[in-house]
Amino acid sequence: MHTLDVALGARSYPIYIGQSLLEQDLLRRHIRASQALIVTNETIAPLYLDAVRQSLSGLDVNTLILPDGEQYKTLATLETIFDALLSQRHSRTTTLIALGGGVIGDMVGFAAACYQRGVDFLQVPTTLLAQVDSSVGGKTAVNHPRGKNMIGAFHQPRAVVIDTTVLNTLPERELSAGLAEVIKYGLIRDADFYQWLEVNMDGLVARDPALLSEAILQSCRNKAEVVAEDETEQGNRALLNLGHTFGHAIETATGYSDWLHGEAVGAGTMMAAQLSADLGWISEADVQRIGALAARAGLPLAPPPGVTAAQFRDLMALDKKVMDGRLRLVLLKAIGSAVVTDQFAAQALERLLEKMCQH
Amino acid sequence: MHTLDVALGARSYPIYIGQSLLEQDLLRRHIRASQALIVTNETIAPLYLDAVRQSLSGLDVNTLILPDGEQYKTLATLETIFDALLSQRHSRTTTLIALGGGVIGDMVGFAAACYQRGVDFLQVPTTLLAQVDSSVGGKTAVNHPRGKNMIGAFHQPRAVVIDTTVLNTLPERELSAGLAEVIKYGLIRDADFYQWLEVNMDGLVARDPALLSEAILQSCRNKAEVVAEDETEQGNRALLNLGHTFGHAIETATGYSDWLHGEAVGAGTMMAAQLSADLGWISEADVQRIGALAARAGLPLAPPPGVTAAQFRDLMALDKKVMDGRLRLVLLKAIGSAVVTDQFAAQALERLLEKMCQH
Repeated sequence: MHTLDVALGARSYPIYIGQSLLEQDLLRRHIRASQALIVTNETIAPLYLDAVRQSLSGLDVNTLILPDGEQYKTLATLETIFDALLSQRHSRTTTLIALGGGVIGDMVGFAAACYQRGVDFLQVPTTLLAQVDSSVGGKTAVNHPRGKNMIGAFHQPRAVVIDTTVLNTLPERELSAGLAEVIKYGLIRDADFYQWLEVNMDGLVARDPALLSEAILQSCRNKAEVVAEDETEQGNRALLNLGHTFGHAIETATGYSDWLHGEAVGAGTMMAAQLSADLGWISEADVQRIGALAARAGLPLAPPPGVTAAQFRDLMALDKKVMDGRLRLVLLKAIGSAVVTDQFAAQALERLLEKMCQH
Repeated sequence: MHTLDVALGARSYPIYIGQSLLEQDLLRRHIRASQALIVTNETIAPLYLDAVRQSLSGLDVNTLILPDGEQYKTLATLETIFDALLSQRHSRTTTLIALGGGVIGDMVGFAAACYQRGVDFLQVPTTLLAQVDSSVGGKTAVNHPRGKNMIGAFHQPRAVVIDTTVLNTLPERELSAGLAEVIKYGLIRDADFYQWLEVNMDGLVARDPALLSEAILQSCRNKAEVVAEDETEQGNRALLNLGHTFGHAIETATGYSDWLHGEAVGAGTMMAAQLSADLGWISEADVQRIGALAARAGLPLAPPPGVTAAQFRDLMALDKKVMDGRLRLVLLKAIGSAVVTDQFAAQALERLLEKMCQH
């Protein structure tokens, strides 16, 4: 088992990475009082809920099983979590346990941020995407019909327990979606890791346990470093959003139901890379190189046919990185180096959208 | 104009108290970018919305008018605030302005805490209760059918602008409700202020402007001191909840629609005082003295007839101060001194409820 620390002073917490961790007593160690609510979804419950419940035997544990999918990451679903907590009389010393992918983690984290103005929660991510990205760093949220993650809070978990064994049951599309965020860390700040991914992508897709474990460890290390430096995204944390402004527009335009978040981020990353090349910041060869790696990861390289340039324009104008009316994007200066910038001609973005979208 | 400071390091902010402050440029001074959304209710809008809008002329200002009443302090109403923000494309640098009483302040503050994971907000309290209590200290929340303020966040405003002139239009019941929280500060930590209130209560009820201003100043000073010492209620901030555990049960039992919050707190304070006397901590004469002051303030001295002892038991078990199954209450050790404690016999509480409730 590897242990990483997210260094945030009084809010610091460990990330545990290893095999069969659900069967150990790691969760119990981080439960402050006697109550806990496990929130999971109908896909994960039959697979892993029993193991988690057993690891907590003796405590006063309730469970809540939600429908599966990004389209349920809403205020309405959040309300069912509050209903469960109150009807089962959970007090301010309770602990919420998010057992699932990014949707469960974001939503349970936000419920924990708001319930009685803040209770403890633990992340038990069951998708590669959640293990390498969304479970670490305390960003929690639900979606709004007009925008992804528009309602949320910064609320750090007490611990993240990453059991790599659960990846054995992960659908192929979900694996690819997670790899989009893994590639992201290489692109924005870790050229060595990017090269390692080029060497090992086929093994990762084939689910070699040692390679997956290394990819998760390096991703979480990168994430923890960025978050420790900028917890509430006043600056460099925004680099973690490479491909996300485009990706969120894709997700919102398609009603959060067609593509997985990681797939949208994959296509969005190619759009950001192409714009970076159009601006002369990276070479077309770099774009090809990124496209080749994303293709090997099984990711889409362009937005879905149904999403128009007009939709991108409209939805990106609502991005959380907009400042005083100016859109800011994460763009590449090299493979391994990114910037958050509004220093690009509006026409360059316009040409990119015309080039990459159908009409 | 008086200015108090709520000393919270990087989150410090001023409280301005004075006459006709809405007509000055105080709000504009604390607006970071060009966008703002004023949220108010249908009672306050015809009275003061124009003045606030005019003080912000030249900025990009939207307004949202909500229905008036504690029964609208819900997740559903919150959603209408998010809808307004997104449909009018407010970015993360926007400022929300809460123009109204405690319901508006709590709800707009919570919307600001969650919108894009946190934006600025300003408190412009228009009731005495909001001016002396809820607008200061960063507690934000909405109610749940099963419990008052169960969903919320700690999110400090950037400034609190208390225009005492607005009290001229305040209904009498609202004035009494505010006085319940004013009396609270005297009871929990400021015996001198309590004596001052005994001398000046009739003038306060008659709305003597100088007396009201002094009462607001002393209340806000007390509140600011408590909050600066314990922002997130790990300890002594809970003393501000004198009468509130009983009061919240009254509000929840009656569907948040019969009594004003301050009226419920007034009755709750008498219940807490009586329990303190039953435990031998204060004298029956003290209880009489508190009852006399509350009566002069126009406050109810006992819970409404429809609320039963069983309802109190049931609803108080969900109080946010419950720890590991044990109810904690704010009780009096003297006039001017309170404690948060679970050191009282369950039977004592039981006898109190039997004595003070109808069946």
